[in-house]
Amino acid sequence: MIAIDWGTSNFRAYRLSSDGRILEARSAPVGISKVEPGQFPAVLGERISDWLAAGSGPVVMSGMVGSRHGWVEVPYAACPAGRAEIAAGAHRLTSYEPSPIIICPGLTYRDAAGVPDVMRGEEMQILGAVDACGEGTYCLPGTHTKFADVQGGRIVSFRTFMTGELFGLLRQHSILTRLMEAPDGTDEASFDEGVQRAQAGGSLLHDLFGVRTRALFGELPAAFAASYLSGVLIGHEIRDASPRGRITLIASASLSRLYARAFGTFGIECVIPDPEAAVTRGLASILALLAEENV
Amino acid sequence: MIAIDWGTSNFRAYRLSSDGRILEARSAPVGISKVEPGQFPAVLGERISDWLAAGSGPVVMSGMVGSRHGWVEVPYAACPAGRAEIAAGAHRLTSYEPSPIIICPGLTYRDAAGVPDVMRGEEMQILGAVDACGEGTYCLPGTHTKFADVQGGRIVSFRTFMTGELFGLLRQHSILTRLMEAPDGTDEASFDEGVQRAQAGGSLLHDLFGVRTRALFGELPAAFAASYLSGVLIGHEIRDASPRGRITLIASASLSRLYARAFGTFGIECVIPDPEAAVTRGLASILALLAEENV
Repeated sequence: MIAIDWGTSNFRAYRLSSDGRILEARSAPVGISKVEPGQFPAVLGERISDWLAAGSGPVVMSGMVGSRHGWVEVPYAACPAGRAEIAAGAHRLTSYEPSPIIICPGLTYRDAAGVPDVMRGEEMQILGAVDACGEGTYCLPGTHTKFADVQGGRIVSFRTFMTGELFGLLRQHSILTRLMEAPDGTDEASFDEGVQRAQAGGSLLHDLFGVRTRALFGELPAAFAASYLSGVLIGHEIRDASPRGRITLIASASLSRLYARAFGTFGIECVIPDPEAAVTRGLASILALLAEENV
Repeated sequence: MIAIDWGTSNFRAYRLSSDGRILEARSAPVGISKVEPGQFPAVLGERISDWLAAGSGPVVMSGMVGSRHGWVEVPYAACPAGRAEIAAGAHRLTSYEPSPIIICPGLTYRDAAGVPDVMRGEEMQILGAVDACGEGTYCLPGTHTKFADVQGGRIVSFRTFMTGELFGLLRQHSILTRLMEAPDGTDEASFDEGVQRAQAGGSLLHDLFGVRTRALFGELPAAFAASYLSGVLIGHEIRDASPRGRITLIASASLSRLYARAFGTFGIECVIPDPEAAVTRGLASILALLAEENV
């Protein structure tokens, strides 16, 4: 079988054994934002036509490929949602040769005030990691970080934080930009200071200005200002999310290191599963469920 | 006498009577960011040489003109600071013909954690308004909003919030940008909804994402999205500042209306003095103090 995580910026495909192990992995920066309408079949063919010709299908996909700007819009499944709800909402594309394609829905959750939230792709990583990592709170950092609560095999609620995007905006377009030198990696001490600043309980809107004033007074070297800013933002996110118990953290190696460090400052323990194994296990389990139902 | 508020973006000059009334006012978008080093005397001459020739001096200035990128860097006065501390830190430029120029310092304040904050210009508006409006909490909204506490005739502490700048960044450069139509003024109901969202006690980093999801689900019209975003940001600022008692609000007419509305949602009463009268009274009082000392 073939599992594909097709997001806004990246395309990641995995050829799996019948028991779900990764036999081969491919990725390319051809996320859906780079694909013209109508070109999804062609782009997919360019990437995995050899796998398809060799009969490696069926294909199961998650991520923004199922959004309004993707291949076909697959309506969100509402939380609480687990494998069964995702399988029930999956869309079967029968027009693609030589293999049918299953596109999984993302999830939506409405908070107490009725404001909706959305995810597409992260749900598969979460559900793929639950067997190994257990239930509780999951954190998936990125441009739009997700915190999700998993109970009884289902994602019962989640919240998105615009942390990564705000970091990019402040880094590139704000009054802070000219105070910062391009960082050569993260300065851990400055990052920790930023996290501690957030932990102290002040206002994010105020603490951001502190990046400027500390630099202005020569108390924060230009090369470390981005690290401190990153700590302030991630620290506020964790404080606001106020997770209970152990966190399962699913992210790239660099973000995992940063977030694990920040959780550590808050005295919160983390488990860090392999993100590729998580998404492929999640997708394979949906396919298995659909196969069972077809029997 | 001549009072000048010379900020980053704007230059505002006032010719005052001997008892401090505004006889004539001039403004131009020649803030210090538009003035080349060494060109301050020339730019000032272009704007008020006729007043100077007529003997309307002395001249007293506040704002970014006293910063590192201004005419001359005047070191900050440390809080608590009132008229006496500002007069003591004022810089006298004797080289300018035909009138000496007094450039007032801005203020700095360090919070309990030692992180510094700064203002240049707002202190003069605050101290100029105290006689008419009384002591307590002052709010001066803008790109970098200030909340200041005034006791015993002095500014004892203050905090800057990056609210206006964040609004601009999110409006112009973020994932929210393409969801928003250019607003035709503020939609008050959407603004109020944003303030109420903030008041409910959630996370700013999360509530910002709600602007996107409400638009995505068709629950927030594109023409109203900027108003809702503005309400979310101002609402979080007010919640975090958690002012006590009546607020004195010093701002342009449009920002005064917006902030008064937001304070109203929080059940906080506002007094709104005239901002030009405030800054000229403040500057005139510094000049009076310096004149007294010279006698």
